[in-house]
Amino acid sequence: MAKVRMGMVGGGEGAFIGAIHRMAAALDGEIELVCGAFSSTAQRSLRSGQSLHLSAERCYGDYVSMFREEAFLPADQRMQFVSIVTPNHLHLPVALAAITAGFHVLSDKPATLNLAEVVQLREALASSDCLYGLTHTYAGYPMVKEARSRIAAGQLGTVRRVAVQYPQGWLATALEQDQNKQAAWRLDPAKAGVSSCMGDIGVHAAHLLEYITQLRISALCADLGSVVEGRCLDDDGAILLRMENGARGVLLASQVALGEENALSIAIYGDTASLTWSQQEPNTLVIQYSDRPSEILRAGASYLDPHTLQFSRTPPGHPEGYIEAFANLYAAFAEQVRGAAENRSAADWAMDCPGIEDAVRGMAFIETAVAASNSDAKWHDFPDL
Amino acid sequence: MAKVRMGMVGGGEGAFIGAIHRMAAALDGEIELVCGAFSSTAQRSLRSGQSLHLSAERCYGDYVSMFREEAFLPADQRMQFVSIVTPNHLHLPVALAAITAGFHVLSDKPATLNLAEVVQLREALASSDCLYGLTHTYAGYPMVKEARSRIAAGQLGTVRRVAVQYPQGWLATALEQDQNKQAAWRLDPAKAGVSSCMGDIGVHAAHLLEYITQLRISALCADLGSVVEGRCLDDDGAILLRMENGARGVLLASQVALGEENALSIAIYGDTASLTWSQQEPNTLVIQYSDRPSEILRAGASYLDPHTLQFSRTPPGHPEGYIEAFANLYAAFAEQVRGAAENRSAADWAMDCPGIEDAVRGMAFIETAVAASNSDAKWHDFPDL
Amino acid sequence: MAKVRMGMVGGGEGAFIGAIHRMAAALDGEIELVCGAFSSTAQRSLRSGQSLHLSAERCYGDYVSMFREEAFLPADQRMQFVSIVTPNHLHLPVALAAITAGFHVLSDKPATLNLAEVVQLREALASSDCLYGLTHTYAGYPMVKEARSRIAAGQLGTVRRVAVQYPQGWLATALEQDQNKQAAWRLDPAKAGVSSCMGDIGVHAAHLLEYITQLRISALCADLGSVVEGRCLDDDGAILLRMENGARGVLLASQVALGEENALSIAIYGDTASLTWSQQEPNTLVIQYSDRPSEILRAGASYLDPHTLQFSRTPPGHPEGYIEAFANLYAAFAEQVRGAAENRSAADWAMDCPGIEDAVRGMAFIETAVAASNSDAKWHDFPDL
Amino acid sequence: MAKVRMGMVGGGEGAFIGAIHRMAAALDGEIELVCGAFSSTAQRSLRSGQSLHLSAERCYGDYVSMFREEAFLPADQRMQFVSIVTPNHLHLPVALAAITAGFHVLSDKPATLNLAEVVQLREALASSDCLYGLTHTYAGYPMVKEARSRIAAGQLGTVRRVAVQYPQGWLATALEQDQNKQAAWRLDPAKAGVSSCMGDIGVHAAHLLEYITQLRISALCADLGSVVEGRCLDDDGAILLRMENGARGVLLASQVALGEENALSIAIYGDTASLTWSQQEPNTLVIQYSDRPSEILRAGASYLDPHTLQFSRTPPGHPEGYIEAFANLYAAFAEQVRGAAENRSAADWAMDCPGIEDAVRGMAFIETAVAASNSDAKWHDFPDL
Repeated sequence: MAKVRMGMVGGGEGAFIGAIHRMAAALDGEIELVCGAFSSTAQRSLRSGQSLHLSAERCYGDYVSMFREEAFLPADQRMQFVSIVTPNHLHLPVALAAITAGFHVLSDKPATLNLAEVVQLREALASSDCLYGLTHTYAGYPMVKEARSRIAAGQLGTVRRVAVQYPQGWLATALEQDQNKQAAWRLDPAKAGVSSCMGDIGVHAAHLLEYITQLRISALCADLGSVVEGRCLDDDGAILLRMENGARGVLLASQVALGEENALSIAIYGDTASLTWSQQEPNTLVIQYSDRPSEILRAGASYLDPHTLQFSRTPPGHPEGYIEAFANLYAAFAEQVRGAAENRSAADWAMDCPGIEDAVRGMAFIETAVAASNSDAKWHDFPDL
Repeated sequence: MAKVRMGMVGGGEGAFIGAIHRMAAALDGEIELVCGAFSSTAQRSLRSGQSLHLSAERCYGDYVSMFREEAFLPADQRMQFVSIVTPNHLHLPVALAAITAGFHVLSDKPATLNLAEVVQLREALASSDCLYGLTHTYAGYPMVKEARSRIAAGQLGTVRRVAVQYPQGWLATALEQDQNKQAAWRLDPAKAGVSSCMGDIGVHAAHLLEYITQLRISALCADLGSVVEGRCLDDDGAILLRMENGARGVLLASQVALGEENALSIAIYGDTASLTWSQQEPNTLVIQYSDRPSEILRAGASYLDPHTLQFSRTPPGHPEGYIEAFANLYAAFAEQVRGAAENRSAADWAMDCPGIEDAVRGMAFIETAVAASNSDAKWHDFPDL
Repeated sequence: MAKVRMGMVGGGEGAFIGAIHRMAAALDGEIELVCGAFSSTAQRSLRSGQSLHLSAERCYGDYVSMFREEAFLPADQRMQFVSIVTPNHLHLPVALAAITAGFHVLSDKPATLNLAEVVQLREALASSDCLYGLTHTYAGYPMVKEARSRIAAGQLGTVRRVAVQYPQGWLATALEQDQNKQAAWRLDPAKAGVSSCMGDIGVHAAHLLEYITQLRISALCADLGSVVEGRCLDDDGAILLRMENGARGVLLASQVALGEENALSIAIYGDTASLTWSQQEPNTLVIQYSDRPSEILRAGASYLDPHTLQFSRTPPGHPEGYIEAFANLYAAFAEQVRGAAENRSAADWAMDCPGIEDAVRGMAFIETAVAASNSDAKWHDFPDL
Repeated sequence: MAKVRMGMVGGGEGAFIGAIHRMAAALDGEIELVCGAFSSTAQRSLRSGQSLHLSAERCYGDYVSMFREEAFLPADQRMQFVSIVTPNHLHLPVALAAITAGFHVLSDKPATLNLAEVVQLREALASSDCLYGLTHTYAGYPMVKEARSRIAAGQLGTVRRVAVQYPQGWLATALEQDQNKQAAWRLDPAKAGVSSCMGDIGVHAAHLLEYITQLRISALCADLGSVVEGRCLDDDGAILLRMENGARGVLLASQVALGEENALSIAIYGDTASLTWSQQEPNTLVIQYSDRPSEILRAGASYLDPHTLQFSRTPPGHPEGYIEAFANLYAAFAEQVRGAAENRSAADWAMDCPGIEDAVRGMAFIETAVAASNSDAKWHDFPDL
């Protein structure tokens, strides 16, 4: 049995997230990077590909060529799925081209530049046999999966109050005016879309909330701002939420919370128990009760849901982190790809990877948040697309 | 030099906060409880007073009698100030009676039943020589004072984003229907006013925010709810804030956050540094920077502001807590009383105790939050009274 | 019913622990400081006493006078017990004088200057009707009591391995050469005894270990040192322990652990569960299991042992600390005194205060540790006196 | 440029550490697993190899065959180094065979079954051109490297007191009697050597201590025990240490600390600053001072030593863990191998991987600890081999 073969678009020299995707893909030894169109020029793409130990002929100057050439290769050599790690504005065209050429797609988030695009993407997928995955990293953490399992099993009772926050500080100064590529494209509407903060991190927080609770956001009231002078996109915001079951929520996201690293955390309060989880200490999940001691659940522990345990590689006390969470998404998606190739169902656990419906809700969240913030009306319905 | 003499109204058998006030008053050996009207019947008041080692003649059946009788006592024996620890609806009448009789007032919060009453109280104080203090406990913690000092000294630069939360879980079930006196009056509009959650704890969070930043809330957008069936007052809510300098904020308060104890915490993000503080680990203040390691400041440490150090009783590593914070307010107020008695200015540190202006803003916060929550309009100005 | 009347020896101007004792005594309103011999000169003692609001005639120039004069006062006025807060070398003579005069004794630790003295003290007590208490502060914390209860109830099974550490950093430089009174007497053999580090803090760690486990140390192997140049007493050390049931242990104490505050912590490993507690976060006790999540027990919570709950003054989430722990010892001892005065048994909880047997074991620990450290032999029996 | 080619001995079905080594090797995309002798039978080795996507002809039935066959392959195809992940008793024979065949060796720890063997190994290496690395995992963590850098730069001043502990609980019951392969070989003297606890984890603690401080242990006094009935090797122990500069230390290791996961932690106290690090929260390093706030250093932060930053893959707040630490050792060793293959010096950072001298000291530690524990003499010199 061979490894699953992956191509990559984006992720060349100077990129951040592409390297993470590659490590995540490599970790379990089940995926092989076989080709890529890493940069916007053929020369830089070649240089990137060769530093990744690819042969020159599988380093493409652009994704159009890559999909065309790979399609001509023998079935047991050509890439099976593409990993898209470009800035946001390229997500849709690359994904559409891949689908047209018959390749599965695993994309960085947000799925597209705007809501209309993601609907178009969903349509293209519907009329194809291609699989689609979206790397909402935080859904890959074992203890996030445990949180979801526990709520699904009713251990928290009815969810009443939720709070999720995602403060970062790295854009507290105008890095985008200072040759920082990562900052520059995220604050450029042509490449990032209508939002910086909500599009880059708020959407992670919203996804985490819906993923864990399996409750949809039904309405929101938003207050976004551009704190650092000269920005035309939001870099900070807070949003009041109403969940479909009536539970109240609040979501805070900020790129100007100076001194914060990547401090995503969530609290879910039910009527029989509650839970809290923090991304910076991801191997711990705390469950709180009204009448007995709080419990500290730990990744890898024998008492966890068997589904959760499939996503740990080490025993408790051997910290796993961000790359392993990412690798869990890759492992699940690769198993889906393998299942499709072998005309069999993928393993159950492999379906626990965000897909196109998550993608649609993510784009709807971003657009609704921005529209709500610009409005004097208090509440805005979350569109059900 | 004698101790400062205190009377008490409320705080009889079965009360919670009255006992805390008495311990806070006793801790430093500078205040003596000399009399009280502890309960609504003379018999129970006497029983309470005697268990507190008061002589029978200083245990009064009601506060009217107490103020009248105490006023007749020789100046070196009669109470100098009254501590009011009744349910909210009695705060105003007791305070007015005390002022009329010439006694200083230290009151539990919120100051009155509603905004109109606190304005009335302010007027009464203005035409008297009486001092007024309000026990916003959390302003008594040394590391809260350090946070305030650092911001006042400009060490955070311009404040841009604030977040304060105060989740509790003790009202997650309908205790008020179950003989729980503490729950019952807090959820009874006649005794608590227009709000339970914002009136009992949200107002602490708002005060802490304004106290630390020395910035006023200028507008808010609120979403309060009554989560537990059968309640007519809010037991949960979140509020978007705008501070007077334009900074955005969010305030979360809940009495139904099951499993939470008294988890008040605050984060203030400036453009040169940030800080976080949590009431449940009150002796630590963390300062975060963009380009150097975060710092852990500890209560009692030599590097703190000298003003802060006046509010610690022990060296670092000897935890001080809630009662000591309360005692800091008592010590400050007692020093004000002593200064007044001796016709001299009180010590500088003694002025660092919440007073009538805090009281007015607190009541304005509660009423504005409730009104805003009931409105379809997004933003509501915070009245400047 | 009157308050219990306390006299004090030591604790005058510039002292640290005397003020803590007074706050602890005052906190619950059940003890009244009525007299004292606070300093080594009559003038300074008077000044101290008056700043504590004592009348001049109850401020004594020395403890001999105090015991003599107080004995002449009417029974309902004279002190009932003496709190001894002097440097170590005075503990015995003051205690003996108090006992001779018929006063109960509550003493700071260590009980005496050396082992021979504490045996002498035990004999004096045995032939008197006087009560004796020793302020091993850390035994006063509610969660320490809970730890003890749980082990006594068998919830940890057989104790197998223990570890206790008490690092402090305040003597990391030669403060004793720099006018620091607290440092100077602790490093002076004439006033401190044969040990600084083990006498001042190691003995607390040893007591905590025996108090929680109710197992006696049976043998030890010690390595003490004088790290800072010029010291003739130890300021740092580690000790291997054997408990009476065969469990192995290690005790670390240091006064030169630069940067540490008062970081006493303990871990007890049984064969069915384990526990950890840290003095700097005293309101939390963690219980660990092999096959289910760790539990976070919190002071004041309803699920604790009823005995434990008698030592909390506030609900969970309202931090109590060092002074409250101290006050728990004072409350218990005062209740013993009251019981004796009323010729009745004291309440059960009042017996949970360290006494003369703890004092004897403490002195035996100090002397054995120093002797063992000076020896080339590996193991030294802990004397059973 | 091709990837570095790795073979593996051990790590077949049911093994734990082999899979970790493979993930660590794969993570950065610079190493390719090309062959292996994974199990003690050819059939199981083949099955393991094929599940790892190796071709059948590179799955060997034993390591002797593997080294022989691989040596016949063309230089650009044959393995360059072997990763040894067998139980301890096979470490030496496999390593010697590899060296004889001219292959570099990267070995799991402890290096050999006993001290005599490691000396033999050192001699074999000395008369070869082979490289040798030892996977003391914890030396691979970025914040451990930062700790080492800071001490090397003198930021702690003179080290005075050290404390390292490594409690685990997984052997708190007699798993070895219950079909647990991991437990069984570790407690079998024929496969594990003279020690279980010190050989498996104590040696990690000792290495971490010497690695961070760059001070050698010069003497020790040990108290090891077999807590669980029926064991002939130690499963628990504590050791007093003396460092070469005179600093005192204590080392605790236990496999029966029920409830503990993999709780390695270390504290180093200097005369100008101190530091603490815990493996379970590996991305944080705390530096403590006497006169200013403690600092929280975080992995990936710009203010770290440039050497440290070479070992992080993500920005601060994106947790990296155990596998990444392991991967840092693999990356360094692979770079050494590549340097040797290209007849150039390896990059500086590549030399920061434990080698044969660490191996020798590790075996000396284990043997000395066991001998010292069995002796009535207090102190035992650490042999300088």
